[in-house]
Amino acid sequence: MKKPMKVVIIGGVAAGPKAASKIIRLMPNADVTIVEKGRLLSYAGCGLPYFVSGVVKEEKELMSTPVGVVRDPIFFRKVKNVHVLNETEAAEIDRAGKRVRIRSLADGKESWLNYDKLVLATGGTPVVPPIPNVRLKNIFTLTGVRDAEGIRAILAEEKARDVVIVGGGLIGVETTEALAYKGCRVTIVEMLPQVLNIFDWEMAELVEQHMESHGVKVLTGTKVVSFQGNGKVSRVATDRGELPADMVVMAVGVRPNVGLAKTAGLEIGSTGAIKVDEHMQTSDPDIYAAGDCVQSVDLLTGRPCFVPLGSTANKQGRVVAVNVCGGSDSFPGVLGSTVCKVFDFCVARTGLTETAAEKLGYEVTTALAPGPDRAHYMPGAAPLLLKLVVDRDTRKLLGAQAIGRGAGDKRIDVAAMAITAGMTVDQLANVDLCYAPPYSPAMDNIITAANVARNKLDGKMIGISSREVHRWMEAKKEFVLLDVRSAAEYEEVRLPGAVSIPLGMLRDRLGELPKDKEIVTFCTVSLRGYEAALILKAAGLKKVRVMDGGLTMWPYEKLPPH
Amino acid sequence: MKKPMKVVIIGGVAAGPKAASKIIRLMPNADVTIVEKGRLLSYAGCGLPYFVSGVVKEEKELMSTPVGVVRDPIFFRKVKNVHVLNETEAAEIDRAGKRVRIRSLADGKESWLNYDKLVLATGGTPVVPPIPNVRLKNIFTLTGVRDAEGIRAILAEEKARDVVIVGGGLIGVETTEALAYKGCRVTIVEMLPQVLNIFDWEMAELVEQHMESHGVKVLTGTKVVSFQGNGKVSRVATDRGELPADMVVMAVGVRPNVGLAKTAGLEIGSTGAIKVDEHMQTSDPDIYAAGDCVQSVDLLTGRPCFVPLGSTANKQGRVVAVNVCGGSDSFPGVLGSTVCKVFDFCVARTGLTETAAEKLGYEVTTALAPGPDRAHYMPGAAPLLLKLVVDRDTRKLLGAQAIGRGAGDKRIDVAAMAITAGMTVDQLANVDLCYAPPYSPAMDNIITAANVARNKLDGKMIGISSREVHRWMEAKKEFVLLDVRSAAEYEEVRLPGAVSIPLGMLRDRLGELPKDKEIVTFCTVSLRGYEAALILKAAGLKKVRVMDGGLTMWPYEKLPPH
Repeated sequence: MKKPMKVVIIGGVAAGPKAASKIIRLMPNADVTIVEKGRLLSYAGCGLPYFVSGVVKEEKELMSTPVGVVRDPIFFRKVKNVHVLNETEAAEIDRAGKRVRIRSLADGKESWLNYDKLVLATGGTPVVPPIPNVRLKNIFTLTGVRDAEGIRAILAEEKARDVVIVGGGLIGVETTEALAYKGCRVTIVEMLPQVLNIFDWEMAELVEQHMESHGVKVLTGTKVVSFQGNGKVSRVATDRGELPADMVVMAVGVRPNVGLAKTAGLEIGSTGAIKVDEHMQTSDPDIYAAGDCVQSVDLLTGRPCFVPLGSTANKQGRVVAVNVCGGSDSFPGVLGSTVCKVFDFCVARTGLTETAAEKLGYEVTTALAPGPDRAHYMPGAAPLLLKLVVDRDTRKLLGAQAIGRGAGDKRIDVAAMAITAGMTVDQLANVDLCYAPPYSPAMDNIITAANVARNKLDGKMIGISSREVHRWMEAKKEFVLLDVRSAAEYEEVRLPGAVSIPLGMLRDRLGELPKDKEIVTFCTVSLRGYEAALILKAAGLKKVRVMDGGLTMWPYEKLPPH
Repeated sequence: MKKPMKVVIIGGVAAGPKAASKIIRLMPNADVTIVEKGRLLSYAGCGLPYFVSGVVKEEKELMSTPVGVVRDPIFFRKVKNVHVLNETEAAEIDRAGKRVRIRSLADGKESWLNYDKLVLATGGTPVVPPIPNVRLKNIFTLTGVRDAEGIRAILAEEKARDVVIVGGGLIGVETTEALAYKGCRVTIVEMLPQVLNIFDWEMAELVEQHMESHGVKVLTGTKVVSFQGNGKVSRVATDRGELPADMVVMAVGVRPNVGLAKTAGLEIGSTGAIKVDEHMQTSDPDIYAAGDCVQSVDLLTGRPCFVPLGSTANKQGRVVAVNVCGGSDSFPGVLGSTVCKVFDFCVARTGLTETAAEKLGYEVTTALAPGPDRAHYMPGAAPLLLKLVVDRDTRKLLGAQAIGRGAGDKRIDVAAMAITAGMTVDQLANVDLCYAPPYSPAMDNIITAANVARNKLDGKMIGISSREVHRWMEAKKEFVLLDVRSAAEYEEVRLPGAVSIPLGMLRDRLGELPKDKEIVTFCTVSLRGYEAALILKAAGLKKVRVMDGGLTMWPYEKLPPH
């Protein structure tokens, strides 16, 4: 009988355990060992903000199977037939000898583990920038269960009231929500001009406003200069003033853990993460890598990227397992699809943003489509704003973003499928999605968005962003801002300087509009605005544009009722 | 100046108004007239069950724009610049003269309307089979607002307690829910062996059980023989006994309204609906057709089909408009994607069922994947059961079905995209869908389902349906039904005759299993069942199968706690 294959897996959180389980399923007699530095295994890192907020009550829920069995070393041994060495560090890879030097964190004892195949699933580490006093007590990152426990302990005992979150990325925003739910006064400090820079500015702006409506203070374009406090943090100094802080969570990004790989001479990619081919194989054919420590390929651009996500880690773990066991599977790459709950908003995206696409040299057309996420007459209908980014040349979808109380995740998943399949917006506009009033409008939001994009690509609709309109206002440019909503809607809320002619009266009141000036039409979502522009165009007015997304996308001042 | 194009549209519910609005947007000076037999226009037919149940309070909500403007003839005139003749019947098409004879239902006056282009959006009519006394009072169909009003009036005044729904298709099931919500004792009578025959039997079975758990009586394989009553219906006689009935709703299907088209000599398709090409053009190049009166093409098989749905009608209306206005757009076809709310269940499907695929000659592999619809530790996580139907030859996805409290519509939309793109399950398993714990598991349900299918295609997992296991039981076949759930789970609910060996103990208790008999493993969802089968296979046991979908998919007797 052939000797069982020895597989050593370094890392026991997501990609590692996934690979281990699948290897055993494919080769039940394999000798699989997971080496994990931490005490805990196979926990749901992405669930940590929900453990902090108390939505998830006990930490063991984060490391249980769906039927409630805790995935501890005994579980792995008995159920999965996988050997686990937790609280054990991998110190060195001896590639020539095909062995890994490990060290027990309990007693410091060292030994060597032989392998036939090695899997690196070493994950990532939160970046902690060298800000003065960053090691003060009550300054956390949120990577492991221990961090979350630390934060919960402070919330429970010391009643932290003022919390500063440094970094407005996904983890920063999720942590903000979690701590706001716990009753903290949260300030989020972001160096860039917007939070969530994987979204375009106008979408991020809506997220910022939504967070502010929930009592969160959002400071963008603000840099943390130092932390202050006596033993534990009490103030955060920024380049725009000081903030009180009983607690700080650093969420400025994650760096791949590549130390072991680097020392062993494995190739590191341009993003700083471990370079793997589509089989998740490193530059050493006996060593695979998966999860937050590896570099991925952007499916759209073919460029290397570093997008550490739990969903990707799990898929890659499976691909590794198949290949370790002699099969052939490949991981094609990522689109950066992601979703995030921000209070009542679902905030989701996939593919390229407008900014990113333009930077890459694409000529893009965008479509903003706000609307209810199901038949508008159904009581549960919730607003959803979609933005599509389309390649003007090929008419292919490049990216999509969704924001609002409505089911944005569904539409972003559809968009991710469309991008993966290389669909044009013309194809997307006629896909057969499932429809019933409790689930979607008859024309699904993404189909409407695709049609808006087609109208713009075909030159039927000339859009202008709210930012540009705002610039025109500030520059005191002469133009007509034409609100075509009903008189009642106009009474309720208005834009400064806008003229009101309800769409139904527009044909009779064309004479009121100057023939020579630029006209910008809008309504709530700009469908009526679009119809108005078409009426004006038909009447011979040439310089007519529609404000993208209408009033819904206006992030600036609005006037209340008269 | 060129004379404006005259467009006549027959039908004012869905495809008609959509085409009219889009034509005016593309050609603001076009002369567009909608001829509609009913009083009401542009109402949401799919919303009628929700108007019956009172979820939608007022009928005008069904015919309002999202900002609450009622789409009546004045709205169409003022806002859309579309002329509407409601309560007007189109009596004849004179193709040679390019005109339509119309008759006012108010005063019987007739006149001719000239057209350059004609659009038929004549919709469908519910089938009313010639059952004796089918014209008794209180026997309804549910097509128009008037039907819904009639049902509501009876509910309000006569307190209908016993209601019989004839037909277990989508409309029958939606109406069943609506009337059960209103407090009626509802019996649904279906001639076929299952309700919702666009689903496979085991999925339909779960829907039937769910309806029964909400007090609905489901009679499948039952034929209505006659209605009885004195003026109004009081009893329904079936081939399996009589049912009391204060009200009956006939929901046995919809027939396309093709009378006008047929008389005018337009080509009718093999399904009995109007034949159109991909431009929605009929056999007369000046006549287009869209919506419930036309025949579609099945995207997968290329065969003609008749799938009347509001989502399709709207898309087709837009395609017609583009082509009427001299552009070129096409409607590629349908997958029969649909979703339906059945009490707490979301019930959705796309593409081919297993039954349909086999009838068409496909060799299929199916995957059943039950699981929570988001991270299982999140409080809102709800069970969702997915079934995939895969072509064994090409490994392409052919169809998908979803049932459960979880968000099935999202996964079916993803499946519809995968089928449209011709994706294999291997590709589907690695798509980059968006993930966060409140929205999906790290491996989305559809990705897990794709992986189950891959395991089966690769011969790693040999499945057996619960129906087949049940047959074995009834035939008293000798086999071991091996429950590998935990002892606690086994205590709670068991299958008759099942042997319990928890997965974690299986390796130590292999000796208890016979080497020569068939063994069927299962757990709650059959992931552990699958792992158990692999352990047994590795131990040299040859005849091992996994019960598809586990206990979740067992629709037969279960034993309560000891």
